[in-house]
Amino acid sequence: MVDRIGVVDTMFARVDMAADALAELATCEGYRERFEVVRRTVPGFKDLAVACKMLIERENCAIVLALGMAGTADVDQVCAHEASQGLMAARLMTSTHIIEVFVHENEADDPGLLASVCRERARKHARNAYWLLYEPEQLTRRAGHGIRQGFPDAGPIV
Amino acid sequence: MVDRIGVVDTMFARVDMAADALAELATCEGYRERFEVVRRTVPGFKDLAVACKMLIERENCAIVLALGMAGTADVDQVCAHEASQGLMAARLMTSTHIIEVFVHENEADDPGLLASVCRERARKHARNAYWLLYEPEQLTRRAGHGIRQGFPDAGPIV
Amino acid sequence: MVDRIGVVDTMFARVDMAADALAELATCEGYRERFEVVRRTVPGFKDLAVACKMLIERENCAIVLALGMAGTADVDQVCAHEASQGLMAARLMTSTHIIEVFVHENEADDPGLLASVCRERARKHARNAYWLLYEPEQLTRRAGHGIRQGFPDAGPIV
Amino acid sequence: MVDRIGVVDTMFARVDMAADALAELATCEGYRERFEVVRRTVPGFKDLAVACKMLIERENCAIVLALGMAGTADVDQVCAHEASQGLMAARLMTSTHIIEVFVHENEADDPGLLASVCRERARKHARNAYWLLYEPEQLTRRAGHGIRQGFPDAGPIV
Amino acid sequence: MVDRIGVVDTMFARVDMAADALAELATCEGYRERFEVVRRTVPGFKDLAVACKMLIERENCAIVLALGMAGTADVDQVCAHEASQGLMAARLMTSTHIIEVFVHENEADDPGLLASVCRERARKHARNAYWLLYEPEQLTRRAGHGIRQGFPDAGPIV
Repeated sequence: MVDRIGVVDTMFARVDMAADALAELATCEGYRERFEVVRRTVPGFKDLAVACKMLIERENCAIVLALGMAGTADVDQVCAHEASQGLMAARLMTSTHIIEVFVHENEADDPGLLASVCRERARKHARNAYWLLYEPEQLTRRAGHGIRQGFPDAGPIV
Repeated sequence: MVDRIGVVDTMFARVDMAADALAELATCEGYRERFEVVRRTVPGFKDLAVACKMLIERENCAIVLALGMAGTADVDQVCAHEASQGLMAARLMTSTHIIEVFVHENEADDPGLLASVCRERARKHARNAYWLLYEPEQLTRRAGHGIRQGFPDAGPIV
Repeated sequence: MVDRIGVVDTMFARVDMAADALAELATCEGYRERFEVVRRTVPGFKDLAVACKMLIERENCAIVLALGMAGTADVDQVCAHEASQGLMAARLMTSTHIIEVFVHENEADDPGLLASVCRERARKHARNAYWLLYEPEQLTRRAGHGIRQGFPDAGPIV
Repeated sequence: MVDRIGVVDTMFARVDMAADALAELATCEGYRERFEVVRRTVPGFKDLAVACKMLIERENCAIVLALGMAGTADVDQVCAHEASQGLMAARLMTSTHIIEVFVHENEADDPGLLASVCRERARKHARNAYWLLYEPEQLTRRAGHGIRQGFPDAGPIV
Repeated sequence: MVDRIGVVDTMFARVDMAADALAELATCEGYRERFEVVRRTVPGFKDLAVACKMLIERENCAIVLALGMAGTADVDQVCAHEASQGLMAARLMTSTHIIEVFVHENEADDPGLLASVCRERARKHARNAYWLLYEPEQLTRRAGHGIRQGFPDAGPIV
C-alpha cells in the first residue's frame, strides 16, 4: 500500500506555500510509488489542526504539513498561538507528526524576501517530513546543528 | 438524510450576526433539501464551544458556525482567547470543522462600520462552511490568496 | 426524576455569591419539583473545574454554576485564566454547560458596588442556567442584544 | 481499607513545604487509621502534575497536595503557568481534587517571611485537603469569606 | 526485559545536548543491562512532545528526556511555551515522566557559558531521569533544597 503525506494550507495566507511543499515532495525518492500526497485548503490557520487530524484519521496520512501565515496585528499573534496549540493537540491525539510551517508577516519587511522565506520554509519542512518518515538518520546527523528553515542556519555554538 | 449545519451565537454580542449567517446559508444550493440549519444561543462566547460540541454530538451537525463578539477591555482579550481555545478543543474532540466568527469591538471605531464587519464576516464564513462541506475545491482555488472576511482581501504577495 | 443544578463557590471569594445564585434559582418555576440544587464549596477558583465535573459525573447535575472572584495582583489574572481554562475543559469533557460567574476585584473600586456586581452577576447567570435547561428560546430572543451581567446591558449596535 | 492522601514536592523549591504538609496531616483526626500519606519528590514543578496523576491512578490516592515554588525571572512565571495548567488537566483527567500549593519567590522580600508563607500555606492547604475528603461542610461554612493561605485572610466585603 | 529510556533532541538546537545526556546515562548503574537508551531527533522543539509520546507508546520507554533550545526573539518564547505545553500533555496522556531539558539562548551572553549550561543541564536531568526510575529516594533526600541544573544550586532558604 502506498503511504500518504498530507498538506494543508489556508486561503488567508498571502503566499502559495503549498505549491512549494508539493514541488519539493515531488522530488523525493519514491514519489507516487512509495508515497502520494493529499492536499486540503481551509479558510484560516485555526482551521488547520482539525483538517490535519481528519487527514490522519480518515485519509490515512502518515504525516502532515500544516502551512499558515500570521498577520502583523497583536490579535494575529494570539491567533497564531491558538493555531499552534491546536496543532500540538492534534499531534498528541493522533500520535502522528504534524510539521508546523508558519510564517509571520513581520519576519521580513520586503515582500519579495517574505515570499522567499515562505517558499524556502515550505520546501525545507517538506523535506523534513520526508526524512521523518523514511530517513530519520538524516535528522539525527544534524542534531544540535542550529538548522533553520527560510533563513540561513544558525549553526552550532562552538 | 438531510445534512445539518449548526449556528451558535451569544446574547453578549451587540450585533445579530446569526441573522446574516442564516440568510447567507439560505442562498446556498441545496438549502432545506441537501442541508438544514440548527440554531442555538448561549449567554457569552465561553459558552460557544460546548454548545457547538453538543450540536455535533447530539444534533448531528456536520459543521458549525460559532459567532461571538469580544469587548475592548484587557480581560475581554483573555476571555476571547479562552473562547477560541475552547473552539479548538471542540473541533479536535469531534474531528469536525467549527468556523470561528469572532469580531473584536476595537476592529472599528465607527459603530456602523463595526456592524458591517460583523455582518460581512458572518456571511463570508457561512459561505466557507458551505464550501468545506460541499465544494472544497472553492477553497483550494483561493489558497494563498490573502482572503479576508469583514475587511477587503489582503491579496497575494507578488 | 428531578433534575439537578449544581452551584460551586470558593472560600477565597469575598462575597457570598452562592447565596444569590441559590435565591434566584428558588424563584424559578419548578424549583424543588422539576429541579433541585446541589451546592459545593472549594478552597479557590482553580478547584472549581474539577468540582463541577464531579457534580456532573457523580451527582448527575444537568448544568453547573461556577462562582469565583479574582484578586488584583498580576498573578491573580493568570490564575483566573487557568481557572477559566479548566472550566472550558470540564465543559467539553462532559458536554455540559458550566456557567462561569467570575468577578475581578478591580471591576469596581467601591466595595459596595463590587458586592452588588457579584450578587447581580450571580443572579443573572443563575437565570441563564435555568433558561439553558428549560427555556432556550429566552436566550435566542436576546441574541446579539449586548446583554451583560452585573453591569447594565451594552445593548445592540444600531 | 485505609484512604490515601498524596503529597508531591520538588527539589527545585527552596523550602521544605512537604514537612509542614505532612506535620499538619499528622494532626488530623483519623491519621494512620482512616487515612495514610504517600509522598513523592520530583525535580521541578512541571513534573508535579504527572506525579500527582500517577499517585491517583496507581497508588489509589483520594486527593493530592502539589507543592512547588516559582523563581523570580519572567520565564519562571511562564513555567509556573505551565505547571498549573498541568495540574488542572490532571484534576480533570482523574476527576480528583489536587490542591495546588505554589509560592512565588517574589511574594516576600524577606527570606524568613517567605519561608513562613511557604510553611503556613502548606499547612492550611493540607487542612483543606482533609476537609474536602472528610468535612466538606467546613469549606461551605467559610464560602465567600475571603480565606487565604500563607497571608492573613482578606475577609468578606461588607 | 531491559527497560528503555528515551532521549529526543532537535536539529534547531545549537548545542548537541543529547551527547551529554547519553554520556551521563552510560555512567549510570545498570546501563545496557537494566536499561538501554533509545534516541530520536526531530526538526524543532514543537515536534518533541509527539516524538516522546511515540517513544513511550511504541518503543516502550519508561521515561523520556526532551532536549531543546529556545531562540531570543519574542516569538521564540511563545514557541517554547507551546512546546512545554505539549510535553505536559504528553506526560499526562501517557502517565509517564518526561523530563524537559530546555535552554533559552538568553540565559547566557557568552557562547561558551551557554554551551556549558546546555551540557550540564542535560547531564543533571539525565541523572534525574535515572533516579526517578530506580532511586526515587535520591530526589526526596533533596526535596526543598533549591536544586538547579546548568547553574549552581540556589540552596535552601534558612
